[in-house]
Amino acid sequence: MGTITVDLNAITANYQQIQSITGSDCTVSAVVKANAYGCGIAPVAAALQNAGADKFLIATLPEGLELRSIIGENPTIYMLGGFDPENSDLYTAEKITPILNSIGEIENYAAFASKSDQALPAIIHIDTGMNRLGLEKQDLVKASEKLDGIDVQYVMSHLACADEKHHAMNEAQYETFKAAAETFPNLPKSLANSSGIFRSPNYHFDMVRPGMSLYGLNPTPETKNPMQPAVTLEIEILQIREARGGETCGYGATHRFEKNCKLATVSMGYADGFIRALSNKGALYWKDYKCPVRGIVSMDLTIVDLSAVPENELPAPGDMLKVIGPNQSAGDLAVACGTIGYEILTSLGRRYNRVYKN
Amino acid sequence: MGTITVDLNAITANYQQIQSITGSDCTVSAVVKANAYGCGIAPVAAALQNAGADKFLIATLPEGLELRSIIGENPTIYMLGGFDPENSDLYTAEKITPILNSIGEIENYAAFASKSDQALPAIIHIDTGMNRLGLEKQDLVKASEKLDGIDVQYVMSHLACADEKHHAMNEAQYETFKAAAETFPNLPKSLANSSGIFRSPNYHFDMVRPGMSLYGLNPTPETKNPMQPAVTLEIEILQIREARGGETCGYGATHRFEKNCKLATVSMGYADGFIRALSNKGALYWKDYKCPVRGIVSMDLTIVDLSAVPENELPAPGDMLKVIGPNQSAGDLAVACGTIGYEILTSLGRRYNRVYKN
Repeated sequence: MGTITVDLNAITANYQQIQSITGSDCTVSAVVKANAYGCGIAPVAAALQNAGADKFLIATLPEGLELRSIIGENPTIYMLGGFDPENSDLYTAEKITPILNSIGEIENYAAFASKSDQALPAIIHIDTGMNRLGLEKQDLVKASEKLDGIDVQYVMSHLACADEKHHAMNEAQYETFKAAAETFPNLPKSLANSSGIFRSPNYHFDMVRPGMSLYGLNPTPETKNPMQPAVTLEIEILQIREARGGETCGYGATHRFEKNCKLATVSMGYADGFIRALSNKGALYWKDYKCPVRGIVSMDLTIVDLSAVPENELPAPGDMLKVIGPNQSAGDLAVACGTIGYEILTSLGRRYNRVYKN
Repeated sequence: MGTITVDLNAITANYQQIQSITGSDCTVSAVVKANAYGCGIAPVAAALQNAGADKFLIATLPEGLELRSIIGENPTIYMLGGFDPENSDLYTAEKITPILNSIGEIENYAAFASKSDQALPAIIHIDTGMNRLGLEKQDLVKASEKLDGIDVQYVMSHLACADEKHHAMNEAQYETFKAAAETFPNLPKSLANSSGIFRSPNYHFDMVRPGMSLYGLNPTPETKNPMQPAVTLEIEILQIREARGGETCGYGATHRFEKNCKLATVSMGYADGFIRALSNKGALYWKDYKCPVRGIVSMDLTIVDLSAVPENELPAPGDMLKVIGPNQSAGDLAVACGTIGYEILTSLGRRYNRVYKN
């Protein structure tokens, strides 16, 4: 079995670092969707709250309800997934503030608000180039005329390419956002995700929305990670075996050993989020020795090569190999198989033990 | 939000089909590890039990304990992950039969059994070429001499390449297994996984161990799927929008639209198991219209292109697009991004509604 250790001190330190970068005039709203990026929403949200966070973002209504039960009635919960009129009463009962992405959602929310004796809070989301969620340019004026009964707390947009320092989209989205926001005058603004926070103070506006950086992923991939790592993962060895030169291993017999070597089989596979794209890529670590993945990652098992380990330092069944930790970050593992650290974290499976360090 | 529908009738029909193929002299043990391949171990195991299954396989001890609480005290539970001496009492208290993969595990289990007043059940696992788990050739005789106090119910091995009909490993492993099993005379044998069951009656021996085929994946990928599909997944549209020719979408702006088109953004991303490798690959379906994925799959959102849908049949926000169903299987989706249907199923996330059809 494996053990994930989440360092809650690192997460709150990352939160505080971002608050110090943006300054006290800027609100830092913590993104805790997708089970706090796989880290566990309950301990993470509680730790952030203890560190002073009082605004959170989630993606879906069930996530909002779960979060409300964790943080109590006072902190603000913004829901990226918009307003679902079929569950309208839950938004008011549980104080979920929707992020309205379209004319249709604004109309539905305004209609719902008209039945209320006070204005209902919302954020207005403007698309500035992601073509994913948010008001289109031609809808802005129309949207601005439909806000009766809606207490718009922020106008926001989302950066598509902020992880690429020099991507032309960054400045283009910034300029588009500033121009579009003029349709909603005198309202606070929010643009920056984790990477955006580190790209330019111009992007901070009145609220930033860090996610990945809280969890220790690198918001500036072109340079050293400014964040504290928050997640480690270790996995138990089930068996040590010897492969002979010429033999193969794993499904499909995709790796052939050139010479005799020692292998470790660990109790972790793609069903645990050690994604199958890591087959014959990536590595685990024993002490500081790199143990490359050999063969196809199985559902519950992965085979690694111990050739780099001296004979007198070989591990034994029951010993733990390091998957995410000082030797390699979630981002490093992601690079090995062509994805991003976010996917490594959000895929972390339910069969691991989870330990929280305070 | 999305809805996964698991057809328990299909799963039990698949179980019964396999039982009819192998004949009544052969035991069919149902593999329900990894939360029954993402389908939900509690309803799946209960349905299989109602259909007559009384032997199950899981990977880890916590899975065994969970399964025992579902199926009651009588059915047999085999644990692929071997014997963990630190939790020895749980094996007897919860009647978990370990599959012993190494000399070390056999020694540990025999030592534990020596304190018991009766022989303890186990399966002996022989490696025949996967180099993953199981006794190595040079350990067979030694292992056969260490079985005091162990009631060996089966000698087993595992096929590495059975999904490839003509792969030379299949017959090689079969022959190696027969020869190796002679070290353990007069014991029942088990070799075949799902694909192995369909490759040759020779591979059936005394017990087969279907997993993927129970859940409707195709054990014979070179031809029509003989199994009944068991899983459908539909996902809700959050927003319909229009992209102009020349615009891009998603993180990194990786897809550029040649001409104006309608897009749907759905509330499903890689945190839900719609793996990021599906970025700019794969498709969802509206009615029978194929809607290709455009841009990078986000954590909680995916964008698809509605160009194939006639203007008067366009969906609206709230409508559900089909992810897995009659138009495409989990296996089809896997092929689109270079993985296997197993990973699609075991990755299905925790934010979906799950509905079980009886």
